[in-house]
Amino acid sequence: MEKLSIVMFSGTADKFIPLGVLSQAAAAMGMQVEVFVTGFALLGFTKKKNELPFSNEFKDMAPALMEGMAKNKVQPWNEMLKEAKKLGAKIYACSMMAGVMGLKKDDFGPLVDDIVGAATFLGNAGGGQVLFI
Amino acid sequence: MEKLSIVMFSGTADKFIPLGVLSQAAAAMGMQVEVFVTGFALLGFTKKKNELPFSNEFKDMAPALMEGMAKNKVQPWNEMLKEAKKLGAKIYACSMMAGVMGLKKDDFGPLVDDIVGAATFLGNAGGGQVLFI
Amino acid sequence: MEKLSIVMFSGTADKFIPLGVLSQAAAAMGMQVEVFVTGFALLGFTKKKNELPFSNEFKDMAPALMEGMAKNKVQPWNEMLKEAKKLGAKIYACSMMAGVMGLKKDDFGPLVDDIVGAATFLGNAGGGQVLFI
Repeated sequence: MEKLSIVMFSGTADKFIPLGVLSQAAAAMGMQVEVFVTGFALLGFTKKKNELPFSNEFKDMAPALMEGMAKNKVQPWNEMLKEAKKLGAKIYACSMMAGVMGLKKDDFGPLVDDIVGAATFLGNAGGGQVLFI
Repeated sequence: MEKLSIVMFSGTADKFIPLGVLSQAAAAMGMQVEVFVTGFALLGFTKKKNELPFSNEFKDMAPALMEGMAKNKVQPWNEMLKEAKKLGAKIYACSMMAGVMGLKKDDFGPLVDDIVGAATFLGNAGGGQVLFI
Repeated sequence: MEKLSIVMFSGTADKFIPLGVLSQAAAAMGMQVEVFVTGFALLGFTKKKNELPFSNEFKDMAPALMEGMAKNKVQPWNEMLKEAKKLGAKIYACSMMAGVMGLKKDDFGPLVDDIVGAATFLGNAGGGQVLFI
């Protein structure tokens, strides 16, 4: 069994798709998956729903992309993460950035397992593969 | 021999430069290189030429950058990938996103070796280093 | 002891925060840290101060973020890198992109240890973990 650790920093809506796909695929392959959410990506994990902006450069193509995803029955990213979590994936919010943005444990939805520091994340990630999204 | 696997998601023109440079450098060092193209980056690999947008934040600097690249005889990214492929690099299009965007094998140019799923990519990437661009 | 190597390509101000945090945290954990600065990120390391643009999508939130960082006494990214360097981290500018942008060794501030090629960076990174920011 191998490990896949993901630093999820980018907060644009499009980047949440590969987060969901890679987390779910890796968890389904029996990999140990750990996501460390930081920066504006934290806005995707709060109880309060925030509308995540699409990358400016590809904004015009967003409606066609969303339509194509619905037509191809691709699950939304949060459903994919839910599946990944059922298979053992863990999702942590970055303590420093949560503090900077005034977010407490109780502000996050059920996808977030805990709030941890960068050192804890790096320690857990040791010996595996790490992506920065 | 080591492995370098790259998830190429970002579709802005500037990000294709490090894709080309890192793929070619790694292949020239004898590393096994595998690129998994997904998201809007797929638009860079179709037979139909799509003009890739430059990152909005640095758009004003794009002409000077392109001029500097020409002056320094830096190859375009697709030439660098062609060289990497001669040295054994493989380039795969993501089956899910190709489906969402309505792209079939025949829509891709000769740089793309095949269309595969994320699980296949992650399986091949095992034991090596992975970048998300 | 493990190795963390970071390709720092993105030049938007927000991305420099995780660069600082991850470099400092990894160095403090005794990891060997190496940063390879390329693309527009080079503008953050010149003696001449360049104002780095914030990601367009989150520009409106930049003032609140900066205020939150000051309130939480989060160090600026260059101070975090300075600390990381005291603990042994190395920062290299990409020779190809420095050439393209007309930057010489003397144009860079004291954070930059040297100018090296991508192959040197990849060679050093072997056997460790690599992030692309």
